[in-house]
Amino acid sequence: MEAMELSDFGKKLTSRSGILLLMDDLGKPLDEGVKPYPLGGGNPARVPQVEQAYRKEMEKLLSSQAFENVISHYDSPQGRMSFIKILADSFRKWYGWDISADNIAITNGSQSAMFYLFNMFSGKAGKMRKTLLFPLMPEYVGYADQGLEEGTFVSIPSKCTYFEDCTFKYSMDMDAVSSYLAAHPEVGAICVSRPTNPSGNVLTDSEIHELDALSKKYRIPLIVDNAYGLPFPDIVFIDEASPIWDENIILSMSLSKIGLPSIRTGIIIASKEVISALSGINAIASLASGSMGQALAESLIANGSLVSMAREYVMPFYKKKKALCESWIKKYFEGTKYMYHKIEGSIFCWIYLPDLSIPSRDFYQELKKKGVITVPGEYFFFGSKEQHEGFDYPHPHYDKCLRLNYSADEETVEEGIKRIASLYRVFS
Amino acid sequence: MEAMELSDFGKKLTSRSGILLLMDDLGKPLDEGVKPYPLGGGNPARVPQVEQAYRKEMEKLLSSQAFENVISHYDSPQGRMSFIKILADSFRKWYGWDISADNIAITNGSQSAMFYLFNMFSGKAGKMRKTLLFPLMPEYVGYADQGLEEGTFVSIPSKCTYFEDCTFKYSMDMDAVSSYLAAHPEVGAICVSRPTNPSGNVLTDSEIHELDALSKKYRIPLIVDNAYGLPFPDIVFIDEASPIWDENIILSMSLSKIGLPSIRTGIIIASKEVISALSGINAIASLASGSMGQALAESLIANGSLVSMAREYVMPFYKKKKALCESWIKKYFEGTKYMYHKIEGSIFCWIYLPDLSIPSRDFYQELKKKGVITVPGEYFFFGSKEQHEGFDYPHPHYDKCLRLNYSADEETVEEGIKRIASLYRVFS
Repeated sequence: MEAMELSDFGKKLTSRSGILLLMDDLGKPLDEGVKPYPLGGGNPARVPQVEQAYRKEMEKLLSSQAFENVISHYDSPQGRMSFIKILADSFRKWYGWDISADNIAITNGSQSAMFYLFNMFSGKAGKMRKTLLFPLMPEYVGYADQGLEEGTFVSIPSKCTYFEDCTFKYSMDMDAVSSYLAAHPEVGAICVSRPTNPSGNVLTDSEIHELDALSKKYRIPLIVDNAYGLPFPDIVFIDEASPIWDENIILSMSLSKIGLPSIRTGIIIASKEVISALSGINAIASLASGSMGQALAESLIANGSLVSMAREYVMPFYKKKKALCESWIKKYFEGTKYMYHKIEGSIFCWIYLPDLSIPSRDFYQELKKKGVITVPGEYFFFGSKEQHEGFDYPHPHYDKCLRLNYSADEETVEEGIKRIASLYRVFS
Repeated sequence: MEAMELSDFGKKLTSRSGILLLMDDLGKPLDEGVKPYPLGGGNPARVPQVEQAYRKEMEKLLSSQAFENVISHYDSPQGRMSFIKILADSFRKWYGWDISADNIAITNGSQSAMFYLFNMFSGKAGKMRKTLLFPLMPEYVGYADQGLEEGTFVSIPSKCTYFEDCTFKYSMDMDAVSSYLAAHPEVGAICVSRPTNPSGNVLTDSEIHELDALSKKYRIPLIVDNAYGLPFPDIVFIDEASPIWDENIILSMSLSKIGLPSIRTGIIIASKEVISALSGINAIASLASGSMGQALAESLIANGSLVSMAREYVMPFYKKKKALCESWIKKYFEGTKYMYHKIEGSIFCWIYLPDLSIPSRDFYQELKKKGVITVPGEYFFFGSKEQHEGFDYPHPHYDKCLRLNYSADEETVEEGIKRIASLYRVFS
């Protein structure tokens, strides 16, 4: 074929994106002979009890014609109604939320839901050009390129508190968020991930309530990505964060971090209007969502075992890994200038290397030669107007950080961290 | 929440769409006490031998840790590499196509692939506004609303040949297509479904070659939706149509009509440039595609049994149903003025009722009161400039047709057809 002539949509969505780089590293091999230490990507760890539970559910489906019934017909574009009803009943029971089946839609993974939601609430709208506000940069790399139009994502750099023990914690610059909203009526929605990918930060209840109040004041929805949060997969290590939902919040959840990354099941809880719109878009763009994840999780949610597995196995599993990760960072980075974000949740450790003599993107390439796959920090900064070599540059940490996925096996994570620390000494 | 303020994207994709109406009918119950005769929607029939094969594959996965290996990690945005390699090898072997793994990408169903492809090749492109040309109207309702921008889909009404036996066949108006392309350099791609949904038409090899030559002349890709075609699911009842692919053709396939509608597995075969772009968009919009359908179909494609099942069970299964459907149409419509499109492929019968005294949309509502679900013809006409009550009006058949899915059980299809014929007599 001749060189392809793409539309603006095609060009924007095929420019070298952070998420593509990240997913590429998952599939493509390293140079020959190099042993890989994969601390990049977002692949979760394998928790045996969780895998066992899905195996039992699959065996149950196979023990009758239920298997054939699941595979043989499309569910509605909103999702599998039996699954949705169980979710609505469960969330009502667990948290007293005033929701019914009309408040829930299922998509092929929460990434697809975000793609639809972001573009529902930002971009051209008549004569206006709506924007989407990310009030806590750095934020998930997978969002960065999801806007169909250029320049519709805006962000506020986080504030940062540094602690004596080589840790730090991001927090929202509420004054900045508030004055941005006051000055920018074109903001169409606010979005945060909680726990935050990449930093492992967990926004406090009061931060969420404050954001929610602000978004209500400006009559825009607050999108909260709860992919690592409560009540499942419950990869949250602090006690002060509770699940929060109201009519103004669009809460996104997923089965990816509780055993089913490859079965693509995103769960959206929102007002009936949002759910109806989202289902409509899902019908047009995808026809229907996959049923298998919903079928496998249905009884596990109904009988409470998905939530108890999350609390009894998934959370402690990652908590142990997190503690080991921290101990190795302390051990191998000892003597260098380093800090890492308090790991309050998620499967990531976000390390800040102030003495790095090269940008973290280049450091990432050097690490790759040693077999260590990470994600360089630049990709998680987007939505600011200041640009630096094609990247947004709104934050003092922007080219000094790496995101490490600590969910690999112990030897891999330890050796990976050891190699990063050793190379940091070379590039300081 | 306050009334939602949506972007243009949100408004366009949530306006009452044909595909949503169609999918709604699948999930929502009729008035109380009305027995349903579901001849609408696109749900395929259940072919026992095919379901049995997938059951065996699932049992095989469960007999080792393969099950856990499949569910526990994301495949690359391009798809599951082992599956893609098997597909490439198989198509090379079967048809001699010069393809490798770089020529294939997997999406969450072919509907999603179409959504990406249509918007890659149409819509705003710098100062230009590219369009997508459908050269054989009526065409699949699921495409109609997939353009992100208004007015970027254009179409050419089919020509029609009428036969003595109450059948007819659509064909492309090649002169019109050719002069349209000559006059409209903004056309970015051409798309046909083959077998055609809704009409059951199968474009001849020479029609495809002619279209392909035209699209090469204008340096635009030809998208061919092969969801019902060869070599699987092989719902093709004529011998003269062969699978055709070259570097300029984007061929879309699916596992939906061969047993796995709910597992969402779309297969795209195209030039490396298109596949690379499509994978990139898939990464951004969906992160990764579901793995289970690919894992279940992998050996069935490698050992040839998916194709032989299609030929030995799926095609004859539908061929029998098609013959019954035709016999019931002849029996119950006898004495009325009616015609139906030659059912050369697909799971649909497209019936033309020239004496209908009300638009087929209204007739659809009347039929629904009698329990019979169909899809009214208006939804399958789009992309013309002439409008009629919000619908495009480019074709003499536009408000006189119904699409019937003949894949339900015999009693349902017979009684459904009987009721349609009886109500046609009332509304003639």
